[in-house]
Amino acid sequence: MKQHEVIALTQELIKRRSVTPADEGCQELIGARLEALGFQLETMVFADTTNLWARRGDTAPVFCFAGHTDVVPPGNERNWQHPPFAAHFDGEYIHGRGAADMKGSLAAMVCATEQFIAKHPDHKGSIAFLITSDEEGPFINGTPKVVETLEQRNEKIDYALVGEPSSTAELGDVVKNGRRGSLSGSLTVFGIQGHVAYPHLAQNPIHSIAPALSALAEAEWDHGNAYFPPTTFQISNINAGTGAGNVIPGECQVEFNFRFSTEVTAQQLQQRTEAILDAHQLDYQLNWKLNGEPFLTDSGELLTATVDSLYAIRGTGPQLSTAGGTSDGRFIAPTGAQVIELGPVNATIHKVDECVKADDLIVLSEVYENILERLLC
Amino acid sequence: MKQHEVIALTQELIKRRSVTPADEGCQELIGARLEALGFQLETMVFADTTNLWARRGDTAPVFCFAGHTDVVPPGNERNWQHPPFAAHFDGEYIHGRGAADMKGSLAAMVCATEQFIAKHPDHKGSIAFLITSDEEGPFINGTPKVVETLEQRNEKIDYALVGEPSSTAELGDVVKNGRRGSLSGSLTVFGIQGHVAYPHLAQNPIHSIAPALSALAEAEWDHGNAYFPPTTFQISNINAGTGAGNVIPGECQVEFNFRFSTEVTAQQLQQRTEAILDAHQLDYQLNWKLNGEPFLTDSGELLTATVDSLYAIRGTGPQLSTAGGTSDGRFIAPTGAQVIELGPVNATIHKVDECVKADDLIVLSEVYENILERLLC
Repeated sequence: MKQHEVIALTQELIKRRSVTPADEGCQELIGARLEALGFQLETMVFADTTNLWARRGDTAPVFCFAGHTDVVPPGNERNWQHPPFAAHFDGEYIHGRGAADMKGSLAAMVCATEQFIAKHPDHKGSIAFLITSDEEGPFINGTPKVVETLEQRNEKIDYALVGEPSSTAELGDVVKNGRRGSLSGSLTVFGIQGHVAYPHLAQNPIHSIAPALSALAEAEWDHGNAYFPPTTFQISNINAGTGAGNVIPGECQVEFNFRFSTEVTAQQLQQRTEAILDAHQLDYQLNWKLNGEPFLTDSGELLTATVDSLYAIRGTGPQLSTAGGTSDGRFIAPTGAQVIELGPVNATIHKVDECVKADDLIVLSEVYENILERLLC
Repeated sequence: MKQHEVIALTQELIKRRSVTPADEGCQELIGARLEALGFQLETMVFADTTNLWARRGDTAPVFCFAGHTDVVPPGNERNWQHPPFAAHFDGEYIHGRGAADMKGSLAAMVCATEQFIAKHPDHKGSIAFLITSDEEGPFINGTPKVVETLEQRNEKIDYALVGEPSSTAELGDVVKNGRRGSLSGSLTVFGIQGHVAYPHLAQNPIHSIAPALSALAEAEWDHGNAYFPPTTFQISNINAGTGAGNVIPGECQVEFNFRFSTEVTAQQLQQRTEAILDAHQLDYQLNWKLNGEPFLTDSGELLTATVDSLYAIRGTGPQLSTAGGTSDGRFIAPTGAQVIELGPVNATIHKVDECVKADDLIVLSEVYENILERLLC
């Protein structure tokens, strides 16, 4: 019975073509299931984004499942073995965009909650769902705005379990207990345009920036710590030139990004970067964007419950990791919540032929339910 | 009479919209004038390019006026004070695309030749015209092919006077007696594409190339000599990145150019460049294009006649220079010809509102005629 439910709900969600920031009724589907369990629903629409805040109970602690209904675009659908929104189930895998990131997790959350409430209708504390349709997009009108709304009315989340696909080789082998920060810089170096035959009348910004880029690429920003690898710096884009081979360009554009540990602050990275640029006497403009502060849940009831549940069901504990990209956990962590990410295997996410193992979703649902039992019983 | 002729012919040439590689009948107009003087005409068409080889006389020495009828595009014609192909004459300046580069020179050459032959119908040696419609374009089917044809039949040019606008502040203040070589490199540096959050799985080609570009930009290639400034290296274009801020690009494209003196060879520059790249252990592909070898006419009858004519008519001698861009002189010099460039003021060439002073063209015509007298009488 339960097996069919998590597979069927995953399929129903995949069939809704919710390419970011569209929700396409996914939250309505989830909301109907939660409402039947006694959840209070609150839909929060900000610009193009639909968000669902659902809560059952009005006491602490508040346990919150966090996730997103939006998916990345499928690309050329003819490259898919099965149509990306057909939700084909071959008996072992469910195929489709969002299967692993993260409609499977959402289905497991709903089914786990249904099972849990059936057994423990009078659980302590509260269960909540924070679902957005803007996790794959610019993440402006999704989780940050919902968290802001909750903060304004002093509604606290104690434990946030984010359903991002954290597993690598098999379900539950990796749990994310934090994420690195992400800081982006957009640099324009100014020179003086001219003809390559008259370099004394020009100033080549590519020549000016080359040694500074070299210094930035070679710099050591920190040594990381027990939870975080050392901070990294990467240039993602560099562009200069008119296309013509005989023109010295007037400016050079460089885009770069830091993924940083808790050993350094965004402000320190900015200061050190600017010091390196200044040491090379460049005429430049630099715009910074802090995509997310690093966060870490290095202990606490949520981490303990998650690790213990995985031991109980899988027989082995997970590897704790802060590696990889960013997640909406970064918006919840600053409120003081404990944040853990646990979801299916991420091998196919954002790729053609994304899929998820149906058995993994069943186990994931059991783990989620087990975590609820450890925290709210 | 002569005054009107050089102005009128310049205007007639400007009115022909000969944007490279079009000739639009300019050579026919010039050819008709030369044929009337007893020149043998030979039109050489190679692909999209029309060339005129005209010669009067069959003995040595062969004095050759060299030039081009094609012009660079006018850009947005509404930005011009006078329409670029209207050839407006305001009493002092003739306005239009090609006025200075180099239809004015062509008109001065024709008028000088007419005057000279009227006075010296039995001049010694030969007078020739080598006119192409592909000097502003890829310079493949113009002067190089004509020179190749002449070489094949063992027809030699002794003196080539190129009408490129060599003057800077006033007519005849600068004469080009050579040009630097031009060598271009197109470099692709290979890395491994990846996500900025997983730099250990990728290899950033921007990071790899930065120190090598720095070394190339700082390198000293030679010290120049009495005739040439030191060799220069300039990067004209650099491009890498997918546009996305979270992707480490798989390759980086760099375009660069040397302008080089006679103190170094193209082969030496290639070897030194590759040695610098190899020292940085880059995975790269590098394609070279030799746009022109450096050439120099540091003495000889043509240089003497040109300097003496300018002294005679202007009262002061010219500054000799090898600076600036390339010219078709580079294709004629390797045959052993003496090559000098003398033409009007270049302040407006390739720009909106290109123009030439009518009086300058009259003086230029007198100088050209005076040079003919010194060499062929």
